[in-house]
Amino acid sequence: MPINLTFRRNAQAPTGVALASFVAGLPLAGLTLAGLAIASVFGTATMAAPKPEIGHFTLTNGLEVVVVPDRRAPVITHMVWYKVGAADETPGKSGLAHFLEHLLFKGTAKNPIGKFSQTVAFVGGQENAFTAQDYTGYFQRVSRDHLKTLMEFESDRMTGLVLTDETVGPELKVVLEEQNQRVANNPRARLSEQIDAALYLNHPYGRPVIGWRHEIEKLNREEALAFYKRFYTPNNAVLVVAGDVKTDEIKALAQETYGKVPKVAEIAPRVRPQEPVQIAARHVTLADARVQQPSLHRAYLVPSSTTAKPGEAEGLEILSFILGHGTTSRLYRTLVVERELAVGAGGFYNGTALDATQFGVYGSPKPGVTLNKLEDAIDGVIDDVVAKGVTPEEVERAKNRLIADAVYAQDSQATMARWYGAALTTGSTVEDVQAWPDRIRAVTADTVNAAAKAWLDKRRSVTGYLVKDSQQEEKRT
Amino acid sequence: MPINLTFRRNAQAPTGVALASFVAGLPLAGLTLAGLAIASVFGTATMAAPKPEIGHFTLTNGLEVVVVPDRRAPVITHMVWYKVGAADETPGKSGLAHFLEHLLFKGTAKNPIGKFSQTVAFVGGQENAFTAQDYTGYFQRVSRDHLKTLMEFESDRMTGLVLTDETVGPELKVVLEEQNQRVANNPRARLSEQIDAALYLNHPYGRPVIGWRHEIEKLNREEALAFYKRFYTPNNAVLVVAGDVKTDEIKALAQETYGKVPKVAEIAPRVRPQEPVQIAARHVTLADARVQQPSLHRAYLVPSSTTAKPGEAEGLEILSFILGHGTTSRLYRTLVVERELAVGAGGFYNGTALDATQFGVYGSPKPGVTLNKLEDAIDGVIDDVVAKGVTPEEVERAKNRLIADAVYAQDSQATMARWYGAALTTGSTVEDVQAWPDRIRAVTADTVNAAAKAWLDKRRSVTGYLVKDSQQEEKRT
Repeated sequence: MPINLTFRRNAQAPTGVALASFVAGLPLAGLTLAGLAIASVFGTATMAAPKPEIGHFTLTNGLEVVVVPDRRAPVITHMVWYKVGAADETPGKSGLAHFLEHLLFKGTAKNPIGKFSQTVAFVGGQENAFTAQDYTGYFQRVSRDHLKTLMEFESDRMTGLVLTDETVGPELKVVLEEQNQRVANNPRARLSEQIDAALYLNHPYGRPVIGWRHEIEKLNREEALAFYKRFYTPNNAVLVVAGDVKTDEIKALAQETYGKVPKVAEIAPRVRPQEPVQIAARHVTLADARVQQPSLHRAYLVPSSTTAKPGEAEGLEILSFILGHGTTSRLYRTLVVERELAVGAGGFYNGTALDATQFGVYGSPKPGVTLNKLEDAIDGVIDDVVAKGVTPEEVERAKNRLIADAVYAQDSQATMARWYGAALTTGSTVEDVQAWPDRIRAVTADTVNAAAKAWLDKRRSVTGYLVKDSQQEEKRT
Repeated sequence: MPINLTFRRNAQAPTGVALASFVAGLPLAGLTLAGLAIASVFGTATMAAPKPEIGHFTLTNGLEVVVVPDRRAPVITHMVWYKVGAADETPGKSGLAHFLEHLLFKGTAKNPIGKFSQTVAFVGGQENAFTAQDYTGYFQRVSRDHLKTLMEFESDRMTGLVLTDETVGPELKVVLEEQNQRVANNPRARLSEQIDAALYLNHPYGRPVIGWRHEIEKLNREEALAFYKRFYTPNNAVLVVAGDVKTDEIKALAQETYGKVPKVAEIAPRVRPQEPVQIAARHVTLADARVQQPSLHRAYLVPSSTTAKPGEAEGLEILSFILGHGTTSRLYRTLVVERELAVGAGGFYNGTALDATQFGVYGSPKPGVTLNKLEDAIDGVIDDVVAKGVTPEEVERAKNRLIADAVYAQDSQATMARWYGAALTTGSTVEDVQAWPDRIRAVTADTVNAAAKAWLDKRRSVTGYLVKDSQQEEKRT
């Protein structure tokens, strides 16, 4: 549910462990600070988190640069993040940010189509790109001696893109096929789109990142180019370099490469239409012939770490952990273990967003259990935590685990790079990322209980049912 | 549900019978060609409808003029309709079209604030204004000797509006109070907003005409003026004059008054973001402490007379009549009379819209009957009509009644004026309005059954429950 990432190329999705979480849970899993790290970690750590010495500076053309040191291997993660995503599209042009992401691989005057990717492949590197509601990113992993080459290529396409009808037309077909594979033929992705659309009454997060198909079909070269010229400029981008590099070294390299890119547009504040007060609980039912296992997915509209009052996002983070993380969570214990109603259950909080975001709970019923019955049981767990709160012991366990995850996450160069990139393109700062363990440490049961009382309000939610059904023809107006 | 009209002034809402339908059903009733006429009519007419000789011409500045002769009284209905409504607003600025409608009463350089309204009142006339998703209109009724005066005033404010912070600021408070009275304190209006928002996943019809309160609060003079300059120009307006007047006479008067107004803007095609294929049935529940009688309201997304294939809108019109009009309708008979589950039930089709519109059914349960049970019964009626179709006799009765209504509606000068104004601002023509009885006459049971099968698809619908509940505090993100 969380941040919907759409990827440029299925076929070339990265296969390395470090990048697995980028693809794994799509589209019903997210890119939360905690979520990113969890896969790789075990431990009961209470240790203090050693803060890596992050380099952070801005070039005169406005490009913000973050350097994340990681001395263990001579490999570099190089990412450029643009502060533009699907939520910045003009209504009626959904999918444009993602389409443009694809088109960034069509070459420049200096580097004709294919040359960049071929070079990355030739030096044994990996590359990919992604689009989300709030940002668009491009990344490569290469050995450190090829970093400057990468920077030359990536800075060149920051403003130098050349688009022709010959390259744009076929790529639109690729994007439509991606929509077909990722959404149209994926019942959970279809439901996820419907939940988003129902959850957001006014905000563009209600539109799918990949776009509505009938709007993707009409995208064209001129619109893509206009979008590019409006948003792709060094003063709207963040460069993140992680690996065995020194800040001074990157500063020099960045100046030599990105430093030559002119600021081509002024960037207006990112003000999107906001949600009205939400007053009515919603349900969405998607019946799809391909559904093997029915499931229930509920999303609550809640503050993001950017829109939240101090402590609130951290409270929601801990709350989601207690309610929904793993087999010791309240939802799993109650629904799967104790009441034997479900084969799976959990929850998440997607705090990394510029505007109001989602807190999710979900479950899959055992055969013979209706979704209504499962929903009643989930409501029971939620009502209980709202009424009686969590225990200090639960909070301690969750905090220890989340902080340990954050510490161990530093083992993943790509994860670290993504934390900073996502944070800096959604209204947070380097300091916010660094202070995250301390902010989690400061959470008390009272913080969590206040968050539960304030935000687990069904009137602010959509409950989605995914059910198996015989298929019918679909109709247009 | 249909077209949401918002009115300028509660206190000055017209009280005459002819205008009653403008206010009566708000916001859960609409302005359909048939619906407009129904209140005033009885009969089993099969007579041919005498076509009134409509005058129709366009001034050189682009103003379209319709003259509807009505010789029975020396009173004139004078209306100016602009082809701009809430659905033409920029996202994030909801309520702007309606706010501007209020501001049109703030005077011009030539006619300072109050002079127009005082003049209308002095000559014993009535006036008002209204805003809908597709149009904004201003009207007066006066005796015919004052027509030219009206035309001078109305043409003057077509491009001559003067707005100052002194007049705009207080009017924003008036609009907010209107939102408070019409929506915030009206459970059915609140539910209606939620149903609209859930029904439209992408199209601006999902936003309330009056605006989301948090966006109304931020509207200002500059935005209102920019909107005015963009859309208020003779080439974006339709003048309708109904009464004891001749076309030549109006042509001369219009030329002398409106003819002097310069075309101040070019008008772009009205292309709004369209809906994706709808694939998931939605439910919305609004609990409000003020609800005395629970009710259920379902809206299906269906073609409007502008977007429909030939015959389709007429089929939906007849279908809505058979299903939902009056005490002999299928819904009423089944739910209220036979099964005694409901105290009321009905349906409607709102065909007059530029883009995809709503087909509605509703019911109010008897005490002790749950909304779930009522919904099952409504589903039964719908499933039956989809599976087995309607009878030729039902179709004949509906056609006779609708055509008779249309004939008798010609007795109402204001209704006639509104038909033409609404049609010409939603993509229909004078000929479309005149051909309406013939198009209804051509409907067969097959047409109706095809419409039912094609469009009464729950996946394209939102079902709203209005229930009584103890009130809770509302929260923002």
